[in-house]
Amino acid sequence: LTARADIEQSMDSSRSPSNDSAFLDDFAMMSTFGATGGGGVDRQAATLEYGRARKWLAGWLAGRGFRVERDRIGNLFGFLELTPGAPYVLIGSHLDSQPRGGRFDGAYGVLAAAHATDRVRNRYQRNGTRAALNIAVVDWFNEEGSRFQPSMMGSAVFTGKLDLENALNTSDAGGISVREAMSAIDELGSNRIGSENVVAAAYVEIHIEQGKTLEKEATDIGLVASTWAANKYEIEVLGAQSHTGATDMEDRQDALYGAALVVAAVRDIADTFPGQLHTSCGQLTVFPNSPNTVAGKVRMHLDLRTSDDPILVEAERNLRQRCAAIELKANVKIDTRRSHSWSANHYQLEGVELARRTAEDLGLRHMEIRTRAGHDSTNMKDLVPTVMLFIPSVGGISHSELEYTADPDLCNGVTMLTELLARIAAGELAGTVSGPRP
Amino acid sequence: LTARADIEQSMDSSRSPSNDSAFLDDFAMMSTFGATGGGGVDRQAATLEYGRARKWLAGWLAGRGFRVERDRIGNLFGFLELTPGAPYVLIGSHLDSQPRGGRFDGAYGVLAAAHATDRVRNRYQRNGTRAALNIAVVDWFNEEGSRFQPSMMGSAVFTGKLDLENALNTSDAGGISVREAMSAIDELGSNRIGSENVVAAAYVEIHIEQGKTLEKEATDIGLVASTWAANKYEIEVLGAQSHTGATDMEDRQDALYGAALVVAAVRDIADTFPGQLHTSCGQLTVFPNSPNTVAGKVRMHLDLRTSDDPILVEAERNLRQRCAAIELKANVKIDTRRSHSWSANHYQLEGVELARRTAEDLGLRHMEIRTRAGHDSTNMKDLVPTVMLFIPSVGGISHSELEYTADPDLCNGVTMLTELLARIAAGELAGTVSGPRP
Repeated sequence: LTARADIEQSMDSSRSPSNDSAFLDDFAMMSTFGATGGGGVDRQAATLEYGRARKWLAGWLAGRGFRVERDRIGNLFGFLELTPGAPYVLIGSHLDSQPRGGRFDGAYGVLAAAHATDRVRNRYQRNGTRAALNIAVVDWFNEEGSRFQPSMMGSAVFTGKLDLENALNTSDAGGISVREAMSAIDELGSNRIGSENVVAAAYVEIHIEQGKTLEKEATDIGLVASTWAANKYEIEVLGAQSHTGATDMEDRQDALYGAALVVAAVRDIADTFPGQLHTSCGQLTVFPNSPNTVAGKVRMHLDLRTSDDPILVEAERNLRQRCAAIELKANVKIDTRRSHSWSANHYQLEGVELARRTAEDLGLRHMEIRTRAGHDSTNMKDLVPTVMLFIPSVGGISHSELEYTADPDLCNGVTMLTELLARIAAGELAGTVSGPRP
Repeated sequence: LTARADIEQSMDSSRSPSNDSAFLDDFAMMSTFGATGGGGVDRQAATLEYGRARKWLAGWLAGRGFRVERDRIGNLFGFLELTPGAPYVLIGSHLDSQPRGGRFDGAYGVLAAAHATDRVRNRYQRNGTRAALNIAVVDWFNEEGSRFQPSMMGSAVFTGKLDLENALNTSDAGGISVREAMSAIDELGSNRIGSENVVAAAYVEIHIEQGKTLEKEATDIGLVASTWAANKYEIEVLGAQSHTGATDMEDRQDALYGAALVVAAVRDIADTFPGQLHTSCGQLTVFPNSPNTVAGKVRMHLDLRTSDDPILVEAERNLRQRCAAIELKANVKIDTRRSHSWSANHYQLEGVELARRTAEDLGLRHMEIRTRAGHDSTNMKDLVPTVMLFIPSVGGISHSELEYTADPDLCNGVTMLTELLARIAAGELAGTVSGPRP
């Protein structure tokens, strides 16, 4: 336990004002890539602005001696080898954003990971102790799923939940594939995912809450204990294109009218499970989308998200019943395909407990929390012991330029992440180190 | 009345099989510009395919000795001067189409006008008589209003209902203006509209019905006696962008949910006036349109069209009441702007009567009919005596690749149009010739 003792001696140094201001300066710099007039960022996956943010991060990491590599789906890693041959704790989040999204969602977690890793490395350099785990900072490709579906794409490929070729061949609305878009910004690597020289033993991620709980409870750190479940659907409503003025109402097969009834029905379904079910349609595209033409086709994406798996089953049943009724009412055909899904799952209890002890040692207010949003940790927790942390998010507003977290909360988060990472690198998270401690 | 007598002698020649096949061959050729796999055309205003169709038409007209000119909004004219100094009867329709539209809507009327004019010219050349009116074939710019709003743009500028500069500055969804798009395909002219050397005295247009009445009644020619009234609206629904998973349902200001309720409400309003009110939303665009983001804004175009002006007043009142209720229910703001409007109006009775006599003389079955769709004749009838003719349209399907009219109906229409044009050129339409007949 020599390493742990040494690190505890240096705990305070990671909370220094100079560390805080270095982080905030870098965060301001990172927020310039794709900056919008409203204080957010527009940095969708594989866009030019996304590539610029990544190049800046890669330079930051390389400048501090991290070995930077992209894998074949374009996840970006900054490897820090502390103990040759030891497995890695991965730590990160995502640099991509929603269109006109916030500057904190994802980007905060990546930069916090980079700073935390750098601070932990400095401790080891000062102390000369031997770490149980190496560290890799990671920027997962396409967590947002706004341009290319599904969301959490890079971590899904990394964890073997999504086929690499399928992911690379996925196209955006303009017909550009992930392969083409990522090659164009030179962000695809040639390395095998999970290659032999990188054995992942744990994963850590910090993120803004995107909810109001921490703010309401005046709490610094959320210890994410479990996820909500989610079903995502791709829906196609098929009607018949015709003239808006001339066509008799009874002859209409109006795909947009059908789609509108689906959007309204989906909201009604949420009302049947107050507080336990979130339903949404965020994307809806009309064909041919001309003012004087009844729509022949509408494509839409629906979300059903819930605290409890059985509610999801019931909600899906309800959705399918209502779609069948709408087919008759609007004289359209509705194809419903579940395209992405995850269950309500727990994060490993040992991780939550380690994070709780760390927050207590640091004097940070903490509470257990659930995540309603999906994160790359949702994928990673099924592969390795995973710890997910939240910091407060003002008003819970996210996927919006209005997204905001105050500087002290940002800095508390980096301090917490640093200390947690130090302890995990020292071998304190059960299940991450096999055999005798070094 | 010498001219009339001479023309009657040659009536039969315009119905010849060789004339019919020449028309059908040209119509097949015209249908290749922007042809779609499904048998329609995609030839929206000011696109490359639209430019190609126009160049072909211009070549056709020039090759037969017509003087071809574009005006400053890009209406294309083929002038045939029979009697120097006489006013003109304009005859035409539009070459632009809806996205994935039919090949008959508009294009049929332009080509029928060109063939009819050519046939009438041949009669005058054979007979050596003097016409009361000159003839100009016209392709009105942007009748469809799919890419640039409002519809019937070229004839609206020509008739002084729409300001030239406003029209030229109108942009499509990609921010390209009419001026830019039409300049790019070299289809803007420099001539003043309604210039001194072109005094319009009458207008004639033939079009497919885009309804089922003629087909149901087994009638060859519709004599359009009046229009339906129409109000068109640009609606913006304003909400607040947020996360689809994390945002509490009660905090949502979901612009797409609000828009969906408007689409459903608009359909409900139609049900309160069965058979007398057509309501539609054909265009709806979501911002930012990402699967995981609650929409912050939706823009949509609505149509209300009715047989009787008072119904339109009542329907608009109903629409505004429902929008106010939806604002509360969906927690959004709805801005409703009436962007284009026309009343239920009659075409000049003299024109209907002249067309009726012509159809009788030709042995064509005919009936009076109303048009639910807007046409360039809707604008022109407010400027000069205007005659509008319909031919049958199978199943009334229009603004669709499935739009279809059989060859015999197409040829009957050209025969009818030729004879009507000959009589108008001879001075038989009251109000078109001032002073003593030539």
